Amino acid sequence: MPPSPLRIEPIPGYSPAIGRLVCMLMYARSTTLAAVEGMTIEELDHVHDSGSNSIGALLAHIAAVERSYQVMTFEDRGLSAEESTRWSVALKLGAEARRLLRGHPLDRYLDDLRTVREVTLQGLGARNDEWLDRSVTIAPKINIHWAWFHAAEDEINHRGQIRWLRKRLPARP
Amino acid sequence: MPPSPLRIEPIPGYSPAIGRLVCMLMYARSTTLAAVEGMTIEELDHVHDSGSNSIGALLAHIAAVERSYQVMTFEDRGLSAEESTRWSVALKLGAEARRLLRGHPLDRYLDDLRTVREVTLQGLGARNDEWLDRSVTIAPKINIHWAWFHAAEDEINHRGQIRWLRKRLPARP
Repeated sequence: MPPSPLRIEPIPGYSPAIGRLVCMLMYARSTTLAAVEGMTIEELDHVHDSGSNSIGALLAHIAAVERSYQVMTFEDRGLSAEESTRWSVALKLGAEARRLLRGHPLDRYLDDLRTVREVTLQGLGARNDEWLDRSVTIAPKINIHWAWFHAAEDEINHRGQIRWLRKRLPARP
Repeated sequence: MPPSPLRIEPIPGYSPAIGRLVCMLMYARSTTLAAVEGMTIEELDHVHDSGSNSIGALLAHIAAVERSYQVMTFEDRGLSAEESTRWSVALKLGAEARRLLRGHPLDRYLDDLRTVREVTLQGLGARNDEWLDRSVTIAPKINIHWAWFHAAEDEINHRGQIRWLRKRLPARP
């Protein structure tokens, strides 16, 4: 963890701008974890209306988005056919996610998030700020810093929805 | 505008880390503006359920949060009694905001956002990265970079809600 979750600054183990980015990724994650703390399987599976994603599906989405940005920026490639098949339900959300992403306890989602995050931090720790500014090979209009900011931004966007949805869950029996 | 909205990098007119922050603030704002484009007064005032904030109120909130972080970081103080009175409805949202923040066209909200943002960019352009890392005088557990990241993060959180709410607006007559 960075020295304080409420500071964005260069931190040990990362080049300066990457350290600031890591602070943002960690802070965003801490708020996601706080937003889902203690949720039951039924609550994670609950669908607010016919167009809504369950909170469980949104957690799976956050992990899948982070994986896809790892592939894009650490491996300079798009998803393989196998990865696309494996992650597409969580990446796309919607009807298929409502059908398939259910029945999992919170720990399953949190384990996935943790496992993916470890790879992110290892990858970022092994690189420098010159790398961070580079264009993404397979999407040259964006640069790598934007890609990782966007991963945090997408998580925060969905965390805003998670908070909203959780407030409106049916009362526990 | 930065050279590309899809890059986070040092930009002319700002010290390096502040430039990256400005890219994030601008990108977050561009997505907020896209999320509300073309909305009518009725749509901005619509309240999804008894606990929801209207999209208009969320836009007013985003401007008020940005103002309050300007005061905190550029002027090293908390809100004055007068500022608190003026901005508290938008800052707090909820029942009072549902009652009072209504009847305004989109341009009114956008003008406020633009006016506030100009002050932010002037303030950030006049400061350097050493300043960015400082603790906030009135809240020393946070530093200034976190404060401004949080302003963007709060906007993104609410933009996630705006997108969700807009999809569920009643059909236009």
